[in-house]
Amino acid sequence: MNEPAYVAVDWGTSSFRLWLMDRDGNVLAERRSGEGMTTAASMGFGTVLSSHLQAVQASAALPVVICGMAGARQGWVEAGYVDVPARLSTVLSNAVRVPAEERDIWILPGIAQRSDTMPDVMRGEETQLLGSAGTVSQRLVCMPGTHSKWVGVDDDVVTSFSSFMTGEVFDALSKHTILKHAMAEADSFDGSHPAFIAAVRHARENPAMFTNLIFTCRSGQLLHGLDATSAAARLSGLLIGTEFAGGLSIAGTDATVQLVASGKLQTLYEAAFAALDLDFETVDADLAVRNGLASAAHSLFFAH
Amino acid sequence: MNEPAYVAVDWGTSSFRLWLMDRDGNVLAERRSGEGMTTAASMGFGTVLSSHLQAVQASAALPVVICGMAGARQGWVEAGYVDVPARLSTVLSNAVRVPAEERDIWILPGIAQRSDTMPDVMRGEETQLLGSAGTVSQRLVCMPGTHSKWVGVDDDVVTSFSSFMTGEVFDALSKHTILKHAMAEADSFDGSHPAFIAAVRHARENPAMFTNLIFTCRSGQLLHGLDATSAAARLSGLLIGTEFAGGLSIAGTDATVQLVASGKLQTLYEAAFAALDLDFETVDADLAVRNGLASAAHSLFFAH
Repeated sequence: MNEPAYVAVDWGTSSFRLWLMDRDGNVLAERRSGEGMTTAASMGFGTVLSSHLQAVQASAALPVVICGMAGARQGWVEAGYVDVPARLSTVLSNAVRVPAEERDIWILPGIAQRSDTMPDVMRGEETQLLGSAGTVSQRLVCMPGTHSKWVGVDDDVVTSFSSFMTGEVFDALSKHTILKHAMAEADSFDGSHPAFIAAVRHARENPAMFTNLIFTCRSGQLLHGLDATSAAARLSGLLIGTEFAGGLSIAGTDATVQLVASGKLQTLYEAAFAALDLDFETVDADLAVRNGLASAAHSLFFAH
Repeated sequence: MNEPAYVAVDWGTSSFRLWLMDRDGNVLAERRSGEGMTTAASMGFGTVLSSHLQAVQASAALPVVICGMAGARQGWVEAGYVDVPARLSTVLSNAVRVPAEERDIWILPGIAQRSDTMPDVMRGEETQLLGSAGTVSQRLVCMPGTHSKWVGVDDDVVTSFSSFMTGEVFDALSKHTILKHAMAEADSFDGSHPAFIAAVRHARENPAMFTNLIFTCRSGQLLHGLDATSAAARLSGLLIGTEFAGGLSIAGTDATVQLVASGKLQTLYEAAFAALDLDFETVDADLAVRNGLASAAHSLFFAH
């Protein structure tokens, strides 16, 4: 093989990733950049994509399949949402073609939960869900990130899901509140940090105290000399522990818990699962999104 | 009377309030400004105080009693903390005199809870507690603000307390996360706003979902056209409802719940108590701090 067959793109809010793929799903070339939706909206989505296609020498005939924020209202072409309960195959059948482009370019829709009290949306994660299906019938999928998702999946149907603003709240609190004084000059830490582990457990048990517990990053510094790195590890653990308290509360008890993550978030969340004595299996998030885009490519380009 | 007897100052992080008082606790003159600790630390605390003393024509013989952040380590003169369980009268006996000032100027200490897992500090609220004692023996005191406090008081002993970063988290989330798009150009709202009331109840019942519920301010806008004012009212209600879930969990069941507040926060918190069907009594926060400072003045200046 090794003949380029299509191009797969994961286009997030702040990141752009492109893979040149052969028909069997092997990666022939890869591009990563910070030209996410925010940047691309001002540079032009077509321009950004073209430059990367050129860099991997993609011929004009190669089709492209895209997931993520490129399909948002503020994105390239709005690709709408499939509503829950959402069969994952309907994500494929609702892909939208980018008009006025000679090349065959398709954007996958997101998934929406139009509940009155718990409205929610995802874009990009539906493709990871498609690519991490495996053999489990009932799964609760934890997908950490800026806006982490906890998703209930029954066979290939997304039944319900919840976004948690874990990553973004960490950022806002550590930069724009009094907590910044407690964690200025923090070193990096990982999931083995005792302050992280204690905080995950504490918040999991007392989620109602969340806005109090975060203050202990500051008061712990004032009264106990808590160091900056421990304060940052503590804040991270409190946010993740609270997320687990919420995410696990929407689980069916028989569900297999799946962590779809990679990099630093993978190790942090694996440590959180371990700290809470929970069984889980990890699926690499990069692999999951490529697998999902491969399914989409086969359905869009090669099924007929 | 109406003869000036002393000057009372509530010196917060971002606000300065001064009252010229007679011996019976009547207010003869008042000053309010934004010269809180942050500003005063660069202008000089003595300079700021002098200018306001001059403005109310306070004679050189008048003594001054101060509570709040002027006693913090980064303040004027560090006034330390009294530890819980803290008899409120010991706050008075631990006042610190500002050295190298001809005028008799005293700063009250804060209260610290040196617990390993729930360290906490207050500065200024101890004076409001002193001034809101009344006749109740067991009380749970809710003191809304940038860092709200919920305080257990048994007779005149502060037994335990918890800070909740409600006001500051509202600010950080509404200005520095994706939620800002949902609430840009929000009008002001009050506690009768249906989105506020629903959110208080929702968060009180599901505090574990806090970082998810806040995301519904955004997803509600995307999916249901939630308007900016409702989104802001919703975020406020979610933060206050979560605070209630945490604050009430530390209450003795027999305690009288006291709200010490004034202005907009008073009406919001009164609406939250009503939404949750909780009995409470309100004490005006301005009156409470002046009463507390009056007790301190009598103990420091007139008891001998």
